[in-house]
Amino acid sequence: MARITPISGFPEWLPEQRIVEQRITDTLRDVFELHGFASVETRAVETVAQLLRKGDIDKEVYGIRRLAADAGEDTDPAKALALHFDLTVPFARYVLENAGKLTFPFRRYQIQKVWRGERPQEGRYREFTQADIDVVNVDELDFTYDIEVTLVMAAAYQRLQTLGLPHITLHTNNRKLAEGFYQGLELADTASVLRIVDKLDKIGPEKVAALLTSDAGASETQAEQCLKLAQIKTDDSSFVDQVKSLGVANELLDEGLHELATVVDAVNATSPGYIKADLSIARGLDYYTGTVIESFMTGYEKLGAVGAGGRYEKLASDGKKTYPGVGLSFGISRTLGPLFAEGLRADRNTPVTALVAVTNEEERATASKVATMLRGRGIGCIVSPTAAKFGKQIKQADKRGIPYVWFPGADGAADQVKDIRSGDQHDADAETWQPPAVDTAAQFVWPNAGD
Amino acid sequence: MARITPISGFPEWLPEQRIVEQRITDTLRDVFELHGFASVETRAVETVAQLLRKGDIDKEVYGIRRLAADAGEDTDPAKALALHFDLTVPFARYVLENAGKLTFPFRRYQIQKVWRGERPQEGRYREFTQADIDVVNVDELDFTYDIEVTLVMAAAYQRLQTLGLPHITLHTNNRKLAEGFYQGLELADTASVLRIVDKLDKIGPEKVAALLTSDAGASETQAEQCLKLAQIKTDDSSFVDQVKSLGVANELLDEGLHELATVVDAVNATSPGYIKADLSIARGLDYYTGTVIESFMTGYEKLGAVGAGGRYEKLASDGKKTYPGVGLSFGISRTLGPLFAEGLRADRNTPVTALVAVTNEEERATASKVATMLRGRGIGCIVSPTAAKFGKQIKQADKRGIPYVWFPGADGAADQVKDIRSGDQHDADAETWQPPAVDTAAQFVWPNAGD
Repeated sequence: MARITPISGFPEWLPEQRIVEQRITDTLRDVFELHGFASVETRAVETVAQLLRKGDIDKEVYGIRRLAADAGEDTDPAKALALHFDLTVPFARYVLENAGKLTFPFRRYQIQKVWRGERPQEGRYREFTQADIDVVNVDELDFTYDIEVTLVMAAAYQRLQTLGLPHITLHTNNRKLAEGFYQGLELADTASVLRIVDKLDKIGPEKVAALLTSDAGASETQAEQCLKLAQIKTDDSSFVDQVKSLGVANELLDEGLHELATVVDAVNATSPGYIKADLSIARGLDYYTGTVIESFMTGYEKLGAVGAGGRYEKLASDGKKTYPGVGLSFGISRTLGPLFAEGLRADRNTPVTALVAVTNEEERATASKVATMLRGRGIGCIVSPTAAKFGKQIKQADKRGIPYVWFPGADGAADQVKDIRSGDQHDADAETWQPPAVDTAAQFVWPNAGD
Repeated sequence: MARITPISGFPEWLPEQRIVEQRITDTLRDVFELHGFASVETRAVETVAQLLRKGDIDKEVYGIRRLAADAGEDTDPAKALALHFDLTVPFARYVLENAGKLTFPFRRYQIQKVWRGERPQEGRYREFTQADIDVVNVDELDFTYDIEVTLVMAAAYQRLQTLGLPHITLHTNNRKLAEGFYQGLELADTASVLRIVDKLDKIGPEKVAALLTSDAGASETQAEQCLKLAQIKTDDSSFVDQVKSLGVANELLDEGLHELATVVDAVNATSPGYIKADLSIARGLDYYTGTVIESFMTGYEKLGAVGAGGRYEKLASDGKKTYPGVGLSFGISRTLGPLFAEGLRADRNTPVTALVAVTNEEERATASKVATMLRGRGIGCIVSPTAAKFGKQIKQADKRGIPYVWFPGADGAADQVKDIRSGDQHDADAETWQPPAVDTAAQFVWPNAGD
């Protein structure tokens, strides 16, 4: 057989990395479910027509087709299938399809893989896992849900940090604020202004100013004001005064200022330090209508946003009813990929806490009995694959990062358990022994943490 | 927009069904991890060459291709990608690719979606979720792992039944037993015999006997003996005597009898009733070399097997080393699809236990504070979307299947909590209140269970 090599852009993790990913996923799920978000999984495919509906031709969509298909089969875009490139388009379709069976306002989370045929590069994958939360309602969705989804994601980031992940900050802005400000400046083509300001990070302030005057009909003063607005970043709601000092008056601007200040204050009250007002955040996609957010991981800003989202008045519509929504997405693969590359892993490559030693092959049944007892009490364990010398069996445990080795007692002697890290060994009873809580789940290990 | 309709063969579940699926998946994961199986997720795609390696042209493979691909791009089968149709082929590839980084014997579980472009029919999907466990080793894998994977899957079925799923039984056979028996009968083409006997369920004994004489060179007596063997089914190891009474002597047969009896006895010792010796089980695929298993769900036998697997001496090979394995697969979608169709669902469409009522919009912050306190102690809740009359808020909870409604006390009065099923209402403190354990997780509900 030809040598097997990875496929670029389709990452796969080793068991000791996958355990980290599972812990991250479990933690997100716990936070989302405590807040009433129900799990939804949509099928991996949508019709090509559905995926291209918004004319997102820049998304590199993967079509699927049976290898045994006939020549003309499945070429109609209304029937041809393709892999979803995000979780928002499928969710919008799911809401329309099941509207009669869902209870609104409907909170859902969705943790699934998505596929994009982009050129693979650092932090960009062709297959990756996202975690999305959204609240959607019929006709109208109260602003209180903008606060709620932001609070929930901040709570999630806080929990991820306690696991050992870097700090992640929600950079928040509001479309009404920017739109109102441009209107107040009497700029006619606010959409163009927004699109150009969105390039600030990539092309810098000089080029943005030049484009604003050449392409968006702005005067030099107007361009300067737009740039000043976009450069405001505060950790609290003090941005309001900074915006007001620019001297632009507009009702929509005031509404945006109020909304953004409310979100920032609410998050700072429960998860201080996890949010910033960042008036450079625009989000290219045009369906956002209020709150807009991009999340950045401290020390890994070069990755770009590891999360994003906001408010959209028209997440979905069936012609009769409109479904407004607000949601946030978090890139699990995008966050973990670079951390794995730096060596992040679990302290073991197995989910268990103990290895039960086998004294000799005749005593394997005794070892199995101990294992069954421990498992019955929720303590994961494996029975040693061989009845080799105890030193070798301990090495097996060590190789897997398993902290405890259990020795069944021979001839009526008590069983013993050994912490192979410290060497401590003492009598133990499989019906009562309890390892310290910290050892029952894998811990995260970093290469620079003296490991 | 055109009316949105489901895509045949790509099932999606409502939140109250998805909660059931999550509980099933969590339970499988718990059992697998307690036994030392590490989670692995492989990418959704393999190269077309890899997938078609075994010449499984009957599998309907979905190729994937960028919609924006150039004409000649990715047509080489060594580079062209397709969606995996099972979890065994990707796992074999993963083991070869990462052999230097895994600790052997390597136990892994894998719960993922797979895709097959089959004609959709009852119990057959084009996208479905499977749960696989396998143990793989280098060069040799002890027979003790045949026992272990069978015990683990039996323990899983036992746990699923306590959740309310129907009984599932492991129908077990052994290739050595059948092969040795045919050799003992002096049938030359044992592979053909096996393939024909595998059709017993579909075409019945008369046609099998006819095929055995016409296509596999068997005499009528030989054909009769083969049929007698295949019709032996016992709940314990008494099949050994039944086989011996057929009067065929062969060493391989004896080895197979011993292995099968050992597996059946071991499972009966820990999970009585979850295994049967069923000598009609053949498993069409030719790579099995010892233990072979198909699982059937009581009352749903018409679905065919809901799980399958066995021992394969050559799961993978890189030309230098061979990796034998033993594993079992369980079809989550195949099992749940028909149960959902009959009405199985969770008693709520949200993961939470309580709805916190809002007395009036000014008091929403009070309700949020209660919610934060409850969540901090692991009790999931949502704050009422509206400050409507309490009767309406209770109806909101009822619609979602949430068992408790919390009323924040006004003007220094104590908070109260109401069990909306019984109507019981009493004073409660958000810092100490604990709902009964049975209410903290959703329960399974059946349409015929008086719901």
